[in-house]
Amino acid sequence: MTPQIGIVMGSDSDLETMKQAAKVCEEFEVGYEIRVLSAHRTPHDATDYASQAHARGLKVIIAGAGGAAHLAGVVAGHTPLPVIGVPIKSAALNGQDSLLSIVQMPAGVPVATVAIDGARNAGLLAIQILATSNTGLLERFQAFKAELVEKTRDKDRRLQERVKAGAL
Amino acid sequence: MTPQIGIVMGSDSDLETMKQAAKVCEEFEVGYEIRVLSAHRTPHDATDYASQAHARGLKVIIAGAGGAAHLAGVVAGHTPLPVIGVPIKSAALNGQDSLLSIVQMPAGVPVATVAIDGARNAGLLAIQILATSNTGLLERFQAFKAELVEKTRDKDRRLQERVKAGAL
Amino acid sequence: MTPQIGIVMGSDSDLETMKQAAKVCEEFEVGYEIRVLSAHRTPHDATDYASQAHARGLKVIIAGAGGAAHLAGVVAGHTPLPVIGVPIKSAALNGQDSLLSIVQMPAGVPVATVAIDGARNAGLLAIQILATSNTGLLERFQAFKAELVEKTRDKDRRLQERVKAGAL
Amino acid sequence: MTPQIGIVMGSDSDLETMKQAAKVCEEFEVGYEIRVLSAHRTPHDATDYASQAHARGLKVIIAGAGGAAHLAGVVAGHTPLPVIGVPIKSAALNGQDSLLSIVQMPAGVPVATVAIDGARNAGLLAIQILATSNTGLLERFQAFKAELVEKTRDKDRRLQERVKAGAL
Amino acid sequence: MTPQIGIVMGSDSDLETMKQAAKVCEEFEVGYEIRVLSAHRTPHDATDYASQAHARGLKVIIAGAGGAAHLAGVVAGHTPLPVIGVPIKSAALNGQDSLLSIVQMPAGVPVATVAIDGARNAGLLAIQILATSNTGLLERFQAFKAELVEKTRDKDRRLQERVKAGAL
Amino acid sequence: MTPQIGIVMGSDSDLETMKQAAKVCEEFEVGYEIRVLSAHRTPHDATDYASQAHARGLKVIIAGAGGAAHLAGVVAGHTPLPVIGVPIKSAALNGQDSLLSIVQMPAGVPVATVAIDGARNAGLLAIQILATSNTGLLERFQAFKAELVEKTRDKDRRLQERVKAGAL
Amino acid sequence: MTPQIGIVMGSDSDLETMKQAAKVCEEFEVGYEIRVLSAHRTPHDATDYASQAHARGLKVIIAGAGGAAHLAGVVAGHTPLPVIGVPIKSAALNGQDSLLSIVQMPAGVPVATVAIDGARNAGLLAIQILATSNTGLLERFQAFKAELVEKTRDKDRRLQERVKAGAL
Amino acid sequence: MTPQIGIVMGSDSDLETMKQAAKVCEEFEVGYEIRVLSAHRTPHDATDYASQAHARGLKVIIAGAGGAAHLAGVVAGHTPLPVIGVPIKSAALNGQDSLLSIVQMPAGVPVATVAIDGARNAGLLAIQILATSNTGLLERFQAFKAELVEKTRDKDRRLQERVKAGAL
Repeated sequence: MTPQIGIVMGSDSDLETMKQAAKVCEEFEVGYEIRVLSAHRTPHDATDYASQAHARGLKVIIAGAGGAAHLAGVVAGHTPLPVIGVPIKSAALNGQDSLLSIVQMPAGVPVATVAIDGARNAGLLAIQILATSNTGLLERFQAFKAELVEKTRDKDRRLQERVKAGAL
Repeated sequence: MTPQIGIVMGSDSDLETMKQAAKVCEEFEVGYEIRVLSAHRTPHDATDYASQAHARGLKVIIAGAGGAAHLAGVVAGHTPLPVIGVPIKSAALNGQDSLLSIVQMPAGVPVATVAIDGARNAGLLAIQILATSNTGLLERFQAFKAELVEKTRDKDRRLQERVKAGAL
Repeated sequence: MTPQIGIVMGSDSDLETMKQAAKVCEEFEVGYEIRVLSAHRTPHDATDYASQAHARGLKVIIAGAGGAAHLAGVVAGHTPLPVIGVPIKSAALNGQDSLLSIVQMPAGVPVATVAIDGARNAGLLAIQILATSNTGLLERFQAFKAELVEKTRDKDRRLQERVKAGAL
Repeated sequence: MTPQIGIVMGSDSDLETMKQAAKVCEEFEVGYEIRVLSAHRTPHDATDYASQAHARGLKVIIAGAGGAAHLAGVVAGHTPLPVIGVPIKSAALNGQDSLLSIVQMPAGVPVATVAIDGARNAGLLAIQILATSNTGLLERFQAFKAELVEKTRDKDRRLQERVKAGAL
Repeated sequence: MTPQIGIVMGSDSDLETMKQAAKVCEEFEVGYEIRVLSAHRTPHDATDYASQAHARGLKVIIAGAGGAAHLAGVVAGHTPLPVIGVPIKSAALNGQDSLLSIVQMPAGVPVATVAIDGARNAGLLAIQILATSNTGLLERFQAFKAELVEKTRDKDRRLQERVKAGAL
Repeated sequence: MTPQIGIVMGSDSDLETMKQAAKVCEEFEVGYEIRVLSAHRTPHDATDYASQAHARGLKVIIAGAGGAAHLAGVVAGHTPLPVIGVPIKSAALNGQDSLLSIVQMPAGVPVATVAIDGARNAGLLAIQILATSNTGLLERFQAFKAELVEKTRDKDRRLQERVKAGAL
Repeated sequence: MTPQIGIVMGSDSDLETMKQAAKVCEEFEVGYEIRVLSAHRTPHDATDYASQAHARGLKVIIAGAGGAAHLAGVVAGHTPLPVIGVPIKSAALNGQDSLLSIVQMPAGVPVATVAIDGARNAGLLAIQILATSNTGLLERFQAFKAELVEKTRDKDRRLQERVKAGAL
Repeated sequence: MTPQIGIVMGSDSDLETMKQAAKVCEEFEVGYEIRVLSAHRTPHDATDYASQAHARGLKVIIAGAGGAAHLAGVVAGHTPLPVIGVPIKSAALNGQDSLLSIVQMPAGVPVATVAIDGARNAGLLAIQILATSNTGLLERFQAFKAELVEKTRDKDRRLQERVKAGAL
C-alpha cells in the first residue's frame, strides 16, 4: 500500500511505543512507513524527509520523541502536512519534558499533541484526519468506536457479575 | 459559507483567546461556527452538538476550555471527527491543569492538543486537516508558510539594521 | 440492600483501587453498586447513569478515573447528587494529571475530590454524607473513628515497647 | 436561622474568597456561621470548634486555608461531620501548596477538596450534601442547575448574535 | 537518659525513615523518645504531647509525616519548642506533597524543614540546636564534621586509586 | 548588643524580605548582624564569615537566597552552628528553585528551611533555638504566642460582628 | 570586529532579554553578530546559519527561545561549535517549558544551558569559552570577577552603614 | 596526559553517571582527572580545587551533584574557567531539584548545564570547548558527529528491514 501516514521517531528506543501507531494503520488498512530520524543526530535526513513528505504523497506525519523532543516541531517547520506529536516517557522526568517540548509550539506552526506514550491515539487521530475525506474510512472509524463501546460494556458486565458472585 | 469547522468553548470568558481560531478560518475563507457549550453546565447541549456535528457537515471541531477542561474530551467521545483541544490559561495554575486535562486522553479517544492559549494554532491545524483533501487550501497554507518566512526574515533584517545603526 | 452509593470507574484497570470504596460500604453495611462507565468510551452510558442516579434512589456517587480524568466532572454535570472524585495514579504522571482534571472544576459544578488513589477515603466521605441524616450511621462512623484512635495508639505502644527492648 | 454549615478560614485575608461560600448559603437560605480559626495560631479554638460542631447542630464544615493548609485536615480529625476543604491561592506557589496540603489526606480522615479558590463550589457541595435528606433543598438545587443551563445558553445565544452581526 | 529530643511520626510506616533521627541521638548520646502520633487519627494525643513537651523537659521536637503532612505544623502550634519537620516520601507524589505541607507554614509558627526523607539531618539539626548551649555537644558535633571530611576524602582517595589502576 | 544571630543574604535585592528576620530580633531584643554575602560573587567572604561565626560568638545563622540558592548550604558546610535557610521568591519560578536548592541538602549537613519568603519565621525559629537555653527568652516567646492567639481571636470577633451587622 | 560569537533568537520578542548577551560581548570587546532565526518559521535559515557558522569563523553560538524552544538544539545538531541555550520566560509556564526543551538534550548533542532569561550569563559563558585559549580575555574575565567581588562588598558595606544608622 | 578537564562529583554514589564524562575524555584522548569533592562535606577541598584549577593547567571543569546540588555553582564562584554542571537524578525528586539547583545561577556566575544524568554530554561539551582552539580536536569532533549520523542511519535501516520482513 502507498504510505499515507509517515511515522518517525527520534531513536529506535522509542519503537516499543511508536509501533502502536503502526498497528493502528494496519488495523485500518492504511498504508504507512516508519523511520528513525533524529532532529539532532541526523538533522539533514529529518528535514529532507519532512520537506519531501507532501510531494511523496504522505497525508499526515506522526513524530515521537522524548526529553528535549524537537522532532515533531522540526518536521512541522518543513511541511504543510498536519503533524501529530507523541511525547515519549523519559528516564528522569517521566515525559513532562517531552510533553512541554512538543505541545508548546509558537503561533504559526502547530503540532497536534497526544498523551505521553499515546502512540495508539496518534494513529487513531491520523485515521480521523484521513477520514475527513474518506467515507469508507470514516465508517470503519465509527465501527471502531462502536466496538470500543461494546468492549467497555463487556468489562462493565463482567464487573457486575463478579459483584453478584460476591467475588469483588 | 457552510461551516466546516466548529469552534466551541466552555465559557464566554474564553472568547478572547478562542476568537483567534475564528480569525484563522476567516483568513483562509473556510466556513466556521462558534458556540459556548459547557461539558458541566450545559452537558446535554455539548453532547448533542458533538453527536450531530458530523451529520451537520462539520469536518473538524476545535474545543477550548480551562481548569478541569473536559469539553474537548467529551466532544471527542461523541463524534468520529478529529477534535482539537485548546488548553485555556487558568487563574491559579496558568493552564497546567487545562493542558493535562486535555492532552492525557485514554487510548481510543484522541484529542489533538495545541499549546496553552494556542487557539491560533488550533485554527491552523484545522486548516491543515482540511487541506489534506483540498488542493486549493493546501496551496493557501503553503503561501501562509512562505509569508511566515518573509515576516520572520523582515524581523531579522530590521534587527541587523538596528545593530548596524548602533541602536541595539 | 438498595444501593445508596454508586461507585463508577473509567476503566476496569481502576478496580484494584476503587474496590476499597466498595469495601467501606460493606463495613458500614450501606448498599452500593459498582460500574465501569467511561466518559470517553461509553459516554452515553455514563451520562444516562448520572442522569437517572437520583431517581433510582442513589444518594452519593463516587467516580474514579486516571489521566485526563473527566468521569467525575461529567457525572456531576448530569446529577444533583454530591459526586466524589478519586484521582487514579497514572502511568506517566503519577496521578498529577488525574488530580488536576478532577479537582479544578468550574464554579457551579463541584466535585468532592480525595487524595490520589484515595478510594477508601471516598467511601468514608460517602458514609459521612449519608450520616448527616442517619443517626445510626453517624454512631457507626464515630465508632470507626474511635477504633482508628485505638489502632494508632496500639502502633504507638508497640513502638514504645520496641524502643524499651532496644530493638529499634 | 440555626447554622447548619460552618465556614472557617485560617486567616481573615481568606475572607474575600471564603465569603462566596457564605453567599451560596444565603442564596439557598441555609443557616451558616463563619469564623476565623487557625490550626497554627489558635489551635485550641480550632479543635474545640471542630469537636463541638456536631453537638452544636452543624451538618457540614467548610474550611479554607492557604500555604501549608492544615485547617481542613485538623478539623476533619476532630469531627465526624463531612469537611470540605478550599485551597486558597497562595502568594508564591499559586495554591499548589494549599491544594496538596488539603487533598492528600491519609486513609481514615477524608477532606472533600474543591478547586483552588473554589469557595463557591464548596458552598454548593455543602448544599448538595444537605439536600441528600432535604427534598425542598434538592429541588432548589435542581432549579439552580436549570438556571445554570439557561445562563450558559444565554451566553451562547449572545455569542451567535455577535457572530451574525460580524462583531466577533 | 532523660529525653531532650522528641521524635514523632504520623504512622508506623514512617519508622524506617524516622529511626535515622533516633540513631543520631544515640551516636551523640542524647536522650530521646519516639512516638507514633497522628494529627488526624489521634489528634488529641498529638496536641497533648505537643502541649506538655516543654514542661516534660524536651528541648526539640522532630516530626515526620507524608502526604498532607500536618503533624509538624500542628505540633508547632501547641509548643514553644523548635520543631523540625521531615517530609516523608509519599506513594504518588514522591514527597512533593509532604514537603509543601510542612515547609510552607504561615508567619508566626515556623517549622524547620529538612529534605524529603531527611530524618538523619533532622537528628543532626536537633543536636546543633542543643549544642548552642552545650559545649561538650558542640565539640562532638565538630568532631562529627571533621570525620565527615575524612570519610569524603577517603572516598576521593579510593577514586584516585581506581583511576590510577585503570579500573574506572 | 553582641550579635547572637547572623543574618546573611546573597544579594541586597533580598533585603526587603530578609529584614523581617532582623525585625524579629529587635522585637525580642536579641543582638544580630546583617550582611550581604554571596556564595558565588564573594565566595571567600561567605566562607570566611561562616568559618568564624562560632568563634565570634554567633549562635544561629539565617541565610536567604533565591534561584540556585547555595548560600545557606555553603554556610552550613563551614560552621557547626544551626543554619536556617530562607528561599527567596525568584523572578521566573516563584521560589520553587530557591526552595529545592535550600531544603534538599545531603545527609550530614542540614539546613533548617522555612517557607518561601518566610524570613519572619526564620527570625522566630532562631529565637526558639536560643530560647532552648534562655528561660527569659522562652517566656517572651510564649508571650508572643499568646499574643498571636489574641490577635487571631480579634480578627475572628471582628468577622462575627461584620456578619451580625449584615456587612459580609 | 570579526564576529566570534553568534547570538540568535527565535523571535524578535526575545530581543529585550537576548541583548544582554550582546552587551557582554561589547563589555569584553569581542566581536558578535545577532540574528532572528526560527527553528519553526525560518527553519532553512536557521540550519544554514548553523551549518556555516564554523566556516564563517564563529567560535560559540548563543541561542535563545521560549516555549517549545527548539532553536538551540537544532543549531547544535548542525554545528560542531559549542552552543549555549537561553530559556526565555514564557507567557503561560514562566519558562519551565523553555528550560526543559533546551536542557534535556539526548546523548551526543549537548546544549550548555543557562538560567531562564539568563542571557547575560550566556554572554559571560561564551567569554569564558573563548578565554580558554586567549590569555588577554582570561585576564579581563578575572578582572570582571574581581569587580564583581568589589560591587558585592560595596552593597554589603552600604547595608552595614544603614544598620548602624538605624535605617534598616 | 596532563589533565585539561577536571571532573568532580559531590559523592562517590555519582560515579556510575559521571564516569561517562571520563569515558568521553578517553575517546577523544584528552587528559582528565576525576575527584570526589563535596561543597558541603569537604568544602575547603572543593574551593581549593576550584581556586587552583586554572593555575594547574585545567581548561574546563565538569561538576556533577544531586539534590541541593551546589558543587558546580561553588566551583564556578572560585574559578575563571568554564564550569559544566551535571544534575544527578535524585532519590525523591528525580533530579528536578538537582537541575534547578544547578541551572538557575545568578547573573555573573554561569554554569553550563546539561540534561539530568547527562554526563556524556558534559564530556562532549568540554571537548567542543577545547576544540574552539584545537583544530585536531575539532576534526575529531566532526568525525564523531559524522559517526553519530551513520549509527542513527543504521538504526533507521534496520527498522526498515524489520518492517519489510513484517517483523515490526
